[in-house]
Amino acid sequence: MTGAPRQMRWWGWGEPAEEVKITTAGEALMLARLGMSGWADRPPVSLERVSLPQPALSASALRSMRAAVGDANVLTDRETRIRRAAGRSYADLIRLRAGDAGTAPDAVVVPGSEDEIGSILAICESEGVAVIPFGGGTSVVGGVTPGRGGLGAAVTLDLARFDSLEVDRRSLLATAGAGLRARNVEAALQAQGLTLGHFPQSFEYASIGGYVATRSAGQASTGYGRIDELVVALQMVAPAGRIRTPRVPASAAGPSVRELLVGSEGAFGVITAATLAVRPSPEVRAFEGWSFRNFAAGVEALRDVEQSEASPDVARLSDEEETAIGLAMADRGSLTDRAARTYLRARGHDRGCLVIVGFEGEREEVAPRKARCTRILRRHGGLALGRRAGEAWVRTRYLAPYLRDVLLDRGVLAETLETATTWSRLEALHAAVGQALGSSLAEEGSRPLVACHVSHLYPSGASLYFTCMARARQGAEVEQWRAAKEAASRAIVEHGATITHHHAVGRDHAAFLRHEIGDLGIAALQAAKGRFDPHGIMNPGALLGPEG
Amino acid sequence: MTGAPRQMRWWGWGEPAEEVKITTAGEALMLARLGMSGWADRPPVSLERVSLPQPALSASALRSMRAAVGDANVLTDRETRIRRAAGRSYADLIRLRAGDAGTAPDAVVVPGSEDEIGSILAICESEGVAVIPFGGGTSVVGGVTPGRGGLGAAVTLDLARFDSLEVDRRSLLATAGAGLRARNVEAALQAQGLTLGHFPQSFEYASIGGYVATRSAGQASTGYGRIDELVVALQMVAPAGRIRTPRVPASAAGPSVRELLVGSEGAFGVITAATLAVRPSPEVRAFEGWSFRNFAAGVEALRDVEQSEASPDVARLSDEEETAIGLAMADRGSLTDRAARTYLRARGHDRGCLVIVGFEGEREEVAPRKARCTRILRRHGGLALGRRAGEAWVRTRYLAPYLRDVLLDRGVLAETLETATTWSRLEALHAAVGQALGSSLAEEGSRPLVACHVSHLYPSGASLYFTCMARARQGAEVEQWRAAKEAASRAIVEHGATITHHHAVGRDHAAFLRHEIGDLGIAALQAAKGRFDPHGIMNPGALLGPEG
Repeated sequence: MTGAPRQMRWWGWGEPAEEVKITTAGEALMLARLGMSGWADRPPVSLERVSLPQPALSASALRSMRAAVGDANVLTDRETRIRRAAGRSYADLIRLRAGDAGTAPDAVVVPGSEDEIGSILAICESEGVAVIPFGGGTSVVGGVTPGRGGLGAAVTLDLARFDSLEVDRRSLLATAGAGLRARNVEAALQAQGLTLGHFPQSFEYASIGGYVATRSAGQASTGYGRIDELVVALQMVAPAGRIRTPRVPASAAGPSVRELLVGSEGAFGVITAATLAVRPSPEVRAFEGWSFRNFAAGVEALRDVEQSEASPDVARLSDEEETAIGLAMADRGSLTDRAARTYLRARGHDRGCLVIVGFEGEREEVAPRKARCTRILRRHGGLALGRRAGEAWVRTRYLAPYLRDVLLDRGVLAETLETATTWSRLEALHAAVGQALGSSLAEEGSRPLVACHVSHLYPSGASLYFTCMARARQGAEVEQWRAAKEAASRAIVEHGATITHHHAVGRDHAAFLRHEIGDLGIAALQAAKGRFDPHGIMNPGALLGPEG
Repeated sequence: MTGAPRQMRWWGWGEPAEEVKITTAGEALMLARLGMSGWADRPPVSLERVSLPQPALSASALRSMRAAVGDANVLTDRETRIRRAAGRSYADLIRLRAGDAGTAPDAVVVPGSEDEIGSILAICESEGVAVIPFGGGTSVVGGVTPGRGGLGAAVTLDLARFDSLEVDRRSLLATAGAGLRARNVEAALQAQGLTLGHFPQSFEYASIGGYVATRSAGQASTGYGRIDELVVALQMVAPAGRIRTPRVPASAAGPSVRELLVGSEGAFGVITAATLAVRPSPEVRAFEGWSFRNFAAGVEALRDVEQSEASPDVARLSDEEETAIGLAMADRGSLTDRAARTYLRARGHDRGCLVIVGFEGEREEVAPRKARCTRILRRHGGLALGRRAGEAWVRTRYLAPYLRDVLLDRGVLAETLETATTWSRLEALHAAVGQALGSSLAEEGSRPLVACHVSHLYPSGASLYFTCMARARQGAEVEQWRAAKEAASRAIVEHGATITHHHAVGRDHAAFLRHEIGDLGIAALQAAKGRFDPHGIMNPGALLGPEG
């Protein structure tokens, strides 16, 4: 594999390819809505001012690790530790920007083989050191923010050297090392006329191991399937040994061990490679915008499309708030045309909802599917906005986390969270979570923005992705965020929905997992963890929480 | 739910709707190939001559169970015990037909609620009694044949009273009681314009709980998906408590607890209900036959169709042997026409392979998919045989287990087994398993028939379903069968394939599960079982074997 991965900013997302701009109209709307007279100025501290604890690893542990993987692969310098101190959740960024790297690992170890991982895990077991597997570092739920779980020290296990890629073209399978950046895998596959088709918003930085460990979904997963549907087999090294699930398309040989390891978030062991289903690169790509009179009409249209097997590969429905903010904040192609707006107003869509549909595949397969989809959207009152609106979404599909850095600079809380439920319960959930976020953040003397879109369609339901913004409470940003997050999480579990559709459990959702899978579900996962990781060194606190 | 389930024969499959006939040509071919001068005459013993052990349940255990579920729901009569003594594997039938019901449970308990199951499990834990959950009783791998696992007694827990059905039409979900017969569920759904689309060969007798507990696949699962893809949520009562997985279309909340329970084969607890994805009843159904010059050409055609997303909902490719036997043994529609045979011979298909493709769905969706499939099959040299060949397959799709009863009467070993692997490894696996079965059974002085078909297409691979027939070694039928089964299983695990694609592990595959998921995989499942079933009363010996 070639192509060095782009490095993230130590305090934020990445170096944007071009400056992230907010339109004047967008600025005005946000300031007004958030009750701010102007932007605050809250830049991150300089790297030199970041404080981090003295390394706590014993000399003998360090010596053993260096012997196991080589001196060059055990890093203890200040910047490396800061760069592995946290993932990219709002709370992570607030702490880093304030110069707090208190969670930094005591060392970063970069093993080169499963044998070396085995050696490192053995050393950590005998020395009582926590191990945090690390791929792209993009977790937004605290999944890679080192926890000690009562142990004296922690090392981050960076999987960068697990970078092999092997393709079985006849079976349309690619076996990728866990440390490979998704973007590099996609580029290598595309060079062979193939695609993984997995494009989460973190695509530019995320790793294959991260995808699998967090049970991720991508923007095109309605068409290509979630990562759990793409993983045919995987390999893991745990403190108790190694496991390699069979490379078979399907099996009835008991409970799925593969599905027990997908989503295990480094708490059972270190995923080292995954065999993933790939497809031929799409021959055609067509993205379009549509408008619906309101959210309910859009939901019914997408449900009908999905249940009629006429679904696009990408399908997103913004609610009224997200549509209005999107219109104001950025160039959205044809949607911003004066003529288009007049047209929408005349048709009763002046407070309408934007839908983006995207089709990818062989021309012969796409054409009839797109035609059927179009007929169904029309039947539900959809107005076609054309390809410009679709292409505008494609251009900005990875932009949000860069924008978040800008908003944090300006004193704005910006957070996203996602859930999923059945079609029957979708609108009630939409209302409840929106209300929970709105009231929690309004309590703090701010008029928050709470926007949402439906995405990831399934025959039985869909996901809801919420974005909220509020004036950040200076000095208490994390408390403000935590209260809102907990209010939303309570609304989600009370509605029988899932606490996370594609961000994983990490540390932020761990307290709510019990509501979702029950005492016996937790007990079963604890039992599995106990067998894989009997001394509890693997990613303490992630997935199962402090008790885990 | 209405409609009393058809009862199986105590010694075999079911009462066939009409007499199972083998054509004269088929009889002649089989006798010649099996080296038999005529059929043997080996009818089952009469019910009165069946021997079964004295019930071993203590009076106190029986009393407690009667108090928990009512006298009428604890059955200890001879016929009920014989009818629950075994599933429907070859070895099960051989023993039953010989009058051996030594595995019969000591009682059959028919609980009516989760509370009652909880009470029965508590009694069995304290009294040291094994519990075997029972739905339709169609297991062909020993899954419901009671084992004691060192305990003094066993009860079969018949789920017949778990027969509720609730439909969420908007989310296309049906929540079905585990004891419901699949056929009754399908009839009730079809009355509402819906279908589950799950049609294993056991469809006429299997239960919903059995589907889920064994990770089944149906004949149309290429289109509708395997049962593990259709189960959105499920409920289980284990000795350690109850679990109800969330009714959500997808989740990233850690490892999949649902996937840990699907396929748990009654060894973790009692599955009581499942929420399943259903679809609108298909508007059109079209089944067709095709011929390919040889097996390799057929495999390539099906691979191309599946990887081009042009796959039929049912797709089956018989190898040369299965095609020849099928032609000789039964009416196969147009294939038996003299004109058709002449045509095939002229095109070089005289030793060809039969393909059945079946399309189901909305007309608008099916038409372009079928057209694309047709073009691809033609490109690979396929010759269309028309709808009569397809309809002939549809008429006989559930026939094989009835035919097995006839063959057993005549002194013929008749066994089937299935596996799956990637497209890259499919032909080598086909050869290896065929050879293993052939040599094992030939050693016994018989020229066996070994036939196979490809079915259940996936982008990464497919399943292989083998049928073998040989002259049964009288008095040593089970040993003869076990040797062949083990030879095939060794070939399967040596090729990295799965030990079972849709029959489950049961008792017959338990020894081979370790080859497939490794020591750590076994350890993880044992750990989960230990948490759900700490005293090891649940279906001892199934799934994890005697050590489990």
